[in-house]
Amino acid sequence: MYFSKSFIPILKNNPTEAKIKSHKLMLRTGMIKQSSAGIYSWLPLGFKVMKKIENIVREEQNRVGVQEILMPTIQSSEIWKESGRYEDYGEEMLRFKDRQNREMLYGPTNEELVTEIFRSSIKSYKSLPQLLYHIQWKFRDELRPRFGIMRCREFYMKDAYSFDISDEEANYSYNKFFISYLNTFKRMELSAIPMAADTGPIGGNLSHEFIILADTGESKIFTDKRIFEVDSTKTTIDKNSLIKLRNDYDKFYSVTDEKFNKVKFETNVPENFRLQTKGIEVGHIFYFGDKYSKSMNASVDFNGKKEFVKMGSYGIGVSRLVGAIIEAKYDDTKEIMKWPMTVSPYDCCILPIINKNDNLNLEKANNIYNALIENKIDVLIDDTEENLSSKIKKFNLLGIPFQIIIGNNFNQQKIEFKEINEEPKYISLENIIKILKSKKIN
Amino acid sequence: MYFSKSFIPILKNNPTEAKIKSHKLMLRTGMIKQSSAGIYSWLPLGFKVMKKIENIVREEQNRVGVQEILMPTIQSSEIWKESGRYEDYGEEMLRFKDRQNREMLYGPTNEELVTEIFRSSIKSYKSLPQLLYHIQWKFRDELRPRFGIMRCREFYMKDAYSFDISDEEANYSYNKFFISYLNTFKRMELSAIPMAADTGPIGGNLSHEFIILADTGESKIFTDKRIFEVDSTKTTIDKNSLIKLRNDYDKFYSVTDEKFNKVKFETNVPENFRLQTKGIEVGHIFYFGDKYSKSMNASVDFNGKKEFVKMGSYGIGVSRLVGAIIEAKYDDTKEIMKWPMTVSPYDCCILPIINKNDNLNLEKANNIYNALIENKIDVLIDDTEENLSSKIKKFNLLGIPFQIIIGNNFNQQKIEFKEINEEPKYISLENIIKILKSKKIN
Repeated sequence: MYFSKSFIPILKNNPTEAKIKSHKLMLRTGMIKQSSAGIYSWLPLGFKVMKKIENIVREEQNRVGVQEILMPTIQSSEIWKESGRYEDYGEEMLRFKDRQNREMLYGPTNEELVTEIFRSSIKSYKSLPQLLYHIQWKFRDELRPRFGIMRCREFYMKDAYSFDISDEEANYSYNKFFISYLNTFKRMELSAIPMAADTGPIGGNLSHEFIILADTGESKIFTDKRIFEVDSTKTTIDKNSLIKLRNDYDKFYSVTDEKFNKVKFETNVPENFRLQTKGIEVGHIFYFGDKYSKSMNASVDFNGKKEFVKMGSYGIGVSRLVGAIIEAKYDDTKEIMKWPMTVSPYDCCILPIINKNDNLNLEKANNIYNALIENKIDVLIDDTEENLSSKIKKFNLLGIPFQIIIGNNFNQQKIEFKEINEEPKYISLENIIKILKSKKIN
Repeated sequence: MYFSKSFIPILKNNPTEAKIKSHKLMLRTGMIKQSSAGIYSWLPLGFKVMKKIENIVREEQNRVGVQEILMPTIQSSEIWKESGRYEDYGEEMLRFKDRQNREMLYGPTNEELVTEIFRSSIKSYKSLPQLLYHIQWKFRDELRPRFGIMRCREFYMKDAYSFDISDEEANYSYNKFFISYLNTFKRMELSAIPMAADTGPIGGNLSHEFIILADTGESKIFTDKRIFEVDSTKTTIDKNSLIKLRNDYDKFYSVTDEKFNKVKFETNVPENFRLQTKGIEVGHIFYFGDKYSKSMNASVDFNGKKEFVKMGSYGIGVSRLVGAIIEAKYDDTKEIMKWPMTVSPYDCCILPIINKNDNLNLEKANNIYNALIENKIDVLIDDTEENLSSKIKKFNLLGIPFQIIIGNNFNQQKIEFKEINEEPKYISLENIIKILKSKKIN
């Protein structure tokens, strides 16, 4: 794709309304555009990143056997009255009446609706466990939306729900999501730490937040540094392997501030391992037993006996992750962003020096472009007449991890090839392709 | 995947509330579940079909150079007041106030919002054309939602918008969508005919509906039968090639009832070529020039002069297509559905006879399953203890195009392999794989 034909409306300067790194960068590089308070449109660059994140989330849900469905954005108030949450939920729930004067709402979460689907479909414990997820827009009418897509009103979220016959089986389901979340964030080059968390309005008594460290984070965390060393690479989807992994994590005190207890922290964590810092929540999992199944009468037949199913719910903020990755990867003093290859909007960019009335460098760029595209490498060519230093400045913000630079001393065997923020190499096109392909596979 | 573990809640009988084939079949096979009037959840079987349709639509948009964005579902009323449509749009527009008392709405379409995005991003004619699309949920508060997802309130739609400097260039953009739509529907094995149509509330003077023939269709159509013979296979994305294609179609009188003129029909169409029938609208394209760009002041600089851009819009009903394909492919007297391979929820199913206390046939099924999965063929095994004839009956409704049947006389070299509604073949697993792979490529 040519930059001049792409829809990437870049701003010359940082927008003054943005207070945090991700909000600044996303507006500046035309990833998003606000349409009203806390509501954004995703332009091509931002959309591509979000879609890649969505696909990683989807693949990792499928891998642990969760089935994808899609619930609507608009729900009836009736199921919320059944569960008792219609009144509990405050003004954050967007409520309205349709033309027939029925009370409706824009779903902020889906425990009620999925329970309704489950109870009318599954009758026997033999069909359990059932693990269902969907990736859908949600709306929470925040009083003061801010920080761009990090705290907005309309957001894109993966939420999953598990249905089991017993606490033990439900714990197994919970642990499947636990490992799936670790793997999901790892594929985005994020080290997300599971921390014991409060269950809040969802309910229940077991919950973990997955937190990535960031100074701009809204969550205060208190943790034992040794938790960063826990190794999950050998964990399998086997029940005992998952229990071992949970134990490996639970050994270390690690909580968000609602759960914080000074005495416990100081008793359990030797002073040199104590870490008190800030983080961004990117995932949250809950186990709440029969809280919804009882109030909404979701039961199965278990050898002639009626048993309320045990449920958990599991969220990942898909749109929020775009911002979280920027908070973790963007150096805003140097103005250099670098997207992880797995979610980058393009794999590589080509920056030719375009001399007036001379198409030679653009032609060279096109030839390289075609060779890369043939190898399924996604490339953006900057065909504008800007000078090279301003092109590089711009592309350092865009964060495409690899750059090919075509100057007037171009040499086919020694093409200038640069990983962002690293020294350039001078190598052949064959070697460039080899490197890019190997990076894509990892 | 095992059928017993899948979330495919099949009904024993046709639901009485459903009046048309697609609504009946979708409820009966657990593809969807109504959550409130005209609002549906998509369960795994329906979701998989819709997702495959979505991906075909996306690939064909990308192929003609349309860039994907994503606009939010909730919009501010202000841009609709600018265009003048806020008052025009009746009660079908779902309107409400947020907690700050701002007038908001659930987008029924996106001409206003995309124009707002365009005008704040693109300043020069040199960046034209711009072709943008998104695939997003829309809401139209139908007075009497009916026919399942064919006439519902919350629906999934691809809508695209083009921005050009002149009528001629805008026509070129229009024609790119024209060929892209023909190719999109062809990949779903639908023969959709472009028919001159009324522009309705969108405005403008050039419009085509893409209609597939179906007795249950809501659109009356009047057409020259020879239009079915127009060949678009040699058309390229070149300007002249597209003009030729448009002319090939325009030669034949073919309109929906709002455009119908009896005298013209009878003058232009020899009696033996006249066809008056019903159809289902699956796509609709519009050219409306500067209707929105003028009222919303969306202009570009053209050599120092301010020019309002010329716009078109282009819709495909993604969720509606699931129903349209059923209307076209489901034989409800024989109760046999057959999904086109490109959108089928699974490529093949395996139906073993399961004898009580004997796992032999299930093991054989598992072996075949593994071989197919290795070859990237998506398979569903019916591991239930139902008898074979009721399994076949069920799978004839599910519509997976190929069936492997494992009875008690199983022979590794002569496996019973059946294309739905055809005579069985008795062939080796290697040949089954060969056939399935070749069908997937086509």
